[in-house]
Amino acid sequence: MSSTAGQVIRCKAAVAWEAGKPLVVEEVEVAPPQAMEVRLKILFTSLCHTDVYFWEAKGQTPLFPRIFGHEAGGIVESVGEGVTDLKPGDHVLPVFTGECGDCRHCKSEESNMCDLLRINTDRGVMLNDGKTRFSINGQPIFHFVGTSTFSEYTVVHVGCVAKINPAAPLDKVCVLSCGISTGLGATLNVAKPTKGSTVAIFGLGAVGLAAAEGARIAGASRIIGVDLNSKRFEEAKKFGCTEFVNPKDHDKPVQEVLAEMTNGGVDRSVECTGSINAMISAFECVHDGWGVAVLVGVPNKDDAFKTHPMNLLNERTLKGTFFGNYKPRSDLPSVVEKYMNKELELEKFITHEVPFSEINKAFEYMLRGESLRCIIRMDA
Amino acid sequence: MSSTAGQVIRCKAAVAWEAGKPLVVEEVEVAPPQAMEVRLKILFTSLCHTDVYFWEAKGQTPLFPRIFGHEAGGIVESVGEGVTDLKPGDHVLPVFTGECGDCRHCKSEESNMCDLLRINTDRGVMLNDGKTRFSINGQPIFHFVGTSTFSEYTVVHVGCVAKINPAAPLDKVCVLSCGISTGLGATLNVAKPTKGSTVAIFGLGAVGLAAAEGARIAGASRIIGVDLNSKRFEEAKKFGCTEFVNPKDHDKPVQEVLAEMTNGGVDRSVECTGSINAMISAFECVHDGWGVAVLVGVPNKDDAFKTHPMNLLNERTLKGTFFGNYKPRSDLPSVVEKYMNKELELEKFITHEVPFSEINKAFEYMLRGESLRCIIRMDA
Repeated sequence: MSSTAGQVIRCKAAVAWEAGKPLVVEEVEVAPPQAMEVRLKILFTSLCHTDVYFWEAKGQTPLFPRIFGHEAGGIVESVGEGVTDLKPGDHVLPVFTGECGDCRHCKSEESNMCDLLRINTDRGVMLNDGKTRFSINGQPIFHFVGTSTFSEYTVVHVGCVAKINPAAPLDKVCVLSCGISTGLGATLNVAKPTKGSTVAIFGLGAVGLAAAEGARIAGASRIIGVDLNSKRFEEAKKFGCTEFVNPKDHDKPVQEVLAEMTNGGVDRSVECTGSINAMISAFECVHDGWGVAVLVGVPNKDDAFKTHPMNLLNERTLKGTFFGNYKPRSDLPSVVEKYMNKELELEKFITHEVPFSEINKAFEYMLRGESLRCIIRMDA
Repeated sequence: MSSTAGQVIRCKAAVAWEAGKPLVVEEVEVAPPQAMEVRLKILFTSLCHTDVYFWEAKGQTPLFPRIFGHEAGGIVESVGEGVTDLKPGDHVLPVFTGECGDCRHCKSEESNMCDLLRINTDRGVMLNDGKTRFSINGQPIFHFVGTSTFSEYTVVHVGCVAKINPAAPLDKVCVLSCGISTGLGATLNVAKPTKGSTVAIFGLGAVGLAAAEGARIAGASRIIGVDLNSKRFEEAKKFGCTEFVNPKDHDKPVQEVLAEMTNGGVDRSVECTGSINAMISAFECVHDGWGVAVLVGVPNKDDAFKTHPMNLLNERTLKGTFFGNYKPRSDLPSVVEKYMNKELELEKFITHEVPFSEINKAFEYMLRGESLRCIIRMDA
């Protein structure tokens, strides 16, 4: 039992007081974990677009003051009542979506969309009592997607914590908490390309590059990157991309360009932009008879996916995925093992590193499109 | 070797001289099979909507005079050059789409959309020489989808002929040539419901009822029939349907009705109407996380399938199928075996029977919506 168990911990956290304003590193109070909760010491966290998206709060429900952050690696400090499968000292990845283990989704082999702990971006409090565990001089500070990892200590529902191999370097595997697993799983768990097949990846940001990495691991022989920004093509080669198409370079729809390049269509496609036109292209570029398109990117509220139904009747498959279909607790440990046995390469995703005191730099790198992942060291 | 091998055969065929006009049973000449062709003696044929559709030729390319018919059972009379896996006397089902065995589709485990022999409704001639094998006093009579089974003898590409168990009664298994296999395979091969699951079937015609039969065979515990014609519901119980929804009885979209009936959505749906609204409902009524919707019905040319992409991202799958994903030569024999071992019931699909001389009655039954399948006995 750690000496802090059951006590309020005072520590540093980066608080977002207002939408779009730089975070402020403050001293916060972190209450002990309640039933089915664990308190984690965060050692490394990284910045994902979703943090930036809700921090900007353009069109999102604004909820401030809030502690963002959802990609991280840490160590269990203490556990609340009823927590039996985690103990202080365990190495863990907190995850923005959870796995209660009891609902129909958790019991289904096909779904990871837990009824109890599915991502909820509007909720800023813990489920157990509807309150926050963070405060500054009595003022509650809201949580973000149940993780709030931009804090030296955070409280998370046990269902949102994956226990991993303690030998895994947390400054690397922390990126598996969200984006990298999302892209990787979209390819490995959902698109499932076979060895020697052709895969198109739409969008060469971190998620798309992770999808390409999945295709590389699966042994795809052609991995065609599609992006409106040709500057991304050189970097994408490291992730297995063998060819590139910039839709701006062509007069015809990109699905036709891809069909011509591949004798009728690619075997698999993975859409990682969230643009509705890219989604339609990603579907229509797969080969009839066996092609599978997987949608990952999150669309706008008013978008409509539209295609001629014959494209489906000709035996194409259209699927969507959430967090790469990984069940957070059951499946993430094995993704960490893929890294440990050198099947999966993570170093190439990590382009920047900053001390916690300079966390706003991580936002700047991402907003300027310079970084894939920027690791934030909590002890620095 | 039969005595007719290599000779022109004179026999009876029901010729469609004009769109929408009653067929006329005429004496036709049937030329011997050329390379990779077989000549079949048809014993039983049945009528499918697709025959009626192209006979009416409303919006279709009219091609007359033509011999329709594509669901049938027969016996090989003689074989052309290069045919090694069929011999005179073999019991067979001719099929409107084929399996060359050599193309990428035939070599794919996932596809049955053969590049060489895929259905072609506009072609009225044989592939080998671009000519017909039927004539009357020298006037060519066109083929229909490579089968033209409304004739005592017909010539078919070997890739469009499934060799079946000679013990199987051809007056029953002939219905497996098209519609029944299409619906059955859509469920068993594509939707793949698990035991105890809930399946919605849109459209309770012969194809939809075959899809329901597939769900019954798979052990689905709830099979919900959806049709605008409530008169079909009583009959559908024989095919495993346990519940019914007539969209006309509800103010809200049928996908919402189904979601309420099933705690969030059905596990699988199969769309057998071809109506674009039914397609969208069939997709949106499946449960998030694991639901799979399969489209079977053929849409109009100008239809657009439209849905919000979040319906996909919430881990629903949308697939289309052609001929139930069965490869005609490789897979149909095993469907016949399902009937032989009493797993699959075919008798309930056969509502009528007429002698060949009264073939036009079969059209009348179908046009009046009275029949599921009407068997036409060629020897009567």
